[in-house]
Formats: sequence, structure tokens, C-alpha cells
Amino acid sequence: MEQNPELAQKIAADVALRLERSKTDIPVGVSNRHVHLCQADWNTLFGAGTEPRKLKATKQPGYWAAYETVGVEGPKGRIEKLRLVAPHRPRTQVEVSLSDAKVLGLKPPIRNSGSLDGTAPVRIVGPKGSLDLTQGLIIAGRHLHLAPAEAQALSLKDGDVVRLRAGAPERSVVFERVLCRVSDKFSLEFHIDTDEANAARLKTGDTAHLV
Amino acid sequence: MEQNPELAQKIAADVALRLERSKTDIPVGVSNRHVHLCQADWNTLFGAGTEPRKLKATKQPGYWAAYETVGVEGPKGRIEKLRLVAPHRPRTQVEVSLSDAKVLGLKPPIRNSGSLDGTAPVRIVGPKGSLDLTQGLIIAGRHLHLAPAEAQALSLKDGDVVRLRAGAPERSVVFERVLCRVSDKFSLEFHIDTDEANAARLKTGDTAHLV
Repeated sequence: MEQNPELAQKIAADVALRLERSKTDIPVGVSNRHVHLCQADWNTLFGAGTEPRKLKATKQPGYWAAYETVGVEGPKGRIEKLRLVAPHRPRTQVEVSLSDAKVLGLKPPIRNSGSLDGTAPVRIVGPKGSLDLTQGLIIAGRHLHLAPAEAQALSLKDGDVVRLRAGAPERSVVFERVLCRVSDKFSLEFHIDTDEANAARLKTGDTAHLV
Repeated sequence: MEQNPELAQKIAADVALRLERSKTDIPVGVSNRHVHLCQADWNTLFGAGTEPRKLKATKQPGYWAAYETVGVEGPKGRIEKLRLVAPHRPRTQVEVSLSDAKVLGLKPPIRNSGSLDGTAPVRIVGPKGSLDLTQGLIIAGRHLHLAPAEAQALSLKDGDVVRLRAGAPERSVVFERVLCRVSDKFSLEFHIDTDEANAARLKTGDTAHLV
């Protein structure tokens, strides 16, 4: 076989990158059902002139869970106490699991946060009023948050699609089609919902690895 | 590079096997929470001298879902209408998902069917009586049923551990640690529970593939 130093170097670099990726412990964040509201919808549900109160910070800088919760309703059922995540966003978005959707009797698509056109309708009930949204209900697609420095260290960029292995030994799962989202507002965390967490027996703070 | 016809032949055979496996459509069976009873426990819950009535056959030959259901209770909650699967077994076994276990406030281990020593306690409530089991509650480990001829065609044997890819395109998952169970009582089916199904947006009759 002919020597090819360039190819050998390329392969060595590739192997080193794969090893680096597989060695990096990535914290898992399990997203329970929750809601983001726009200011107008907040006003309808909780009353104009009021503000959400901070309960605790989320791992993603800038966002926090509020004391306030809402109920959501569909044709088959109702779920109480969806946590509000603040600060408010330009558009109202309700994130549930597929299990939740079955309880409600609704069929939300799997979407990335903020991508709401053509999503499912849902009724939201607050202490001061209720809303019948024509869209805004989604199952959040699994995704990997990265700060720019973290993305650079792993040779990943915004929009890349990766695979991650996680789970209890007897329930190990490789999650495919994981979207990378890179922003200086993010820090390294693999976001899954409660169905995905239960399928692999994962909880927030457990560890995943790039495959 | 030296020629090595034996090695080449071995690699070709291996590639052919992998291709054969990956091409084989394997039906997915989603197991909802259910219960198997021993005769004595049936007598306690439903009354001696009575028999379960067949509702419908399951895909696995010989077993059927009964009209009869039970309730189960744990320290945090109760779940109604767990379907009885008959005929009766030597030992009573309650199979739930991790989501169900959280509702009950119980911590069942992930186990193979029939492997009940040291599993979780649970209370079962029937129309004629109730039972406080000291063990018998499990989360069923995912597994692949095969008839002997199917196992032979895929070069698999009882006890092998395989990986299967399944799920909606945007929720594709590779389920690892899938136990192969070969018996002339079985037919080809990949059994997962409702959490696993919801994590990958799968339903009974969908298709999985060996990886």
C-alpha cells in the first residue's frame, strides 16, 4: 500500500475528535411540560400590570421558572399546573410530552422552540382569564445547547445534527437527530422531555455522551 | 497488501448478515401496563370458581387479554384498570412503565418477565378482594420475541443482546440492550413499554430494524 501522510493525518485528527467528543460529559436536562407566554397573553391570563415572580433559575442563562402556572385543556382532558418559564417571549408556546398530548386528546407536532406555524391549538386557563390558541402547542424536539466555546471545542456548529448515548445501563438509548443550538445565551446541556427521560431512566443532571 | 481469501469470505458473509438483519422489518408491540395473576391471587381478587373471559388475542401465541382488570396502589397514588393477561402464570407479576411507577410512588426494577425476586411491593385491588404483594412489580425490560426459524434466519439465539432502530424520523432512537427471547411460543415482535413508545413516537404495528 502506498504511503499517504495527508490521509493518515486526516484520519488521526478525526479519531482524536471522535474520542474527545465521546469523553465529554454532557449534562442532561429533563424538560417537564411548561409554557412561555407573550405579554398580551400574560395580561389576559394573569391581569395587566402584574409580573411573574421568579421561583428558580434554569440551567440556560437568563431564563427562570416562575411561581405562576396555568392549566391547559384539549378535547379529551385537562392538565393542571404547567409551569411558566420567563421572561416573556414574542409568541406564546406550550411544550408538552406525547403522553401529555394523549391525555389532552391533541396532536402537537415535534418542533424546535419558536417554530410555531401550523402547530396544534390548545386552550390555556389562568387565574384571571382563558385563551383559545389556534396554534402554539408543540412537543419540543430533543436538542443540545452549547455556548460558542463549547461548540468550538467539540467542532460543532449551530444547526448540526448529532447522536447522543444516555440512560441507565439496562435502558441505554442512542438518541438520534439531536439538533445543536449554539448561542452565547446557552450552556452545555442535552434537553429531552419526560417521555424520553423515562424511556432511558434519565433524570436532570445525568450524563450523556456524543456517539 | 496480501490476498487473504478466507478473511475476504468471512467479511463478505458478515456484511451479508448485517444487510439481511437491517432489511428485516420487525413489528413493534407496545405493552401497556398489565398484570399476570397466579391462580391463588385470581381467586382472592375475583373469587374462586370463576374464570377470566377472553377479550382479544395478543400477538404472542397462546396469550390473550382478558375483559377483567384490576387497580394497583402505591404510597403516592392509584392506577385503575390494569388489563389482565391470561392464561394464569405460576407467579403474579405487575408490569408498569416508569411514568406509572412515579404516579404510584414505587420504584420497581427493570426486569425480564418472570424474574421477580427482590422486585417492588404493590397493592392489587380486585372486585372481590385485595392483595398486598411483597414483590411482583416490575418495569419490563425491552425485548425481542423470535420463533426459532426467525432466530435462525437472523443468526440470533436466545439470550443474545441486540440493538434496534425505530421511531418517527424526527424522533429516531436506537434502543440498546435488547434481549432476544427465542421460543416456539413466540413470533417476531419487538416489545417496548409506553414510555419507550412515546419517546420515539411509536405505536403497535410500526417497524423497527436491527442495527
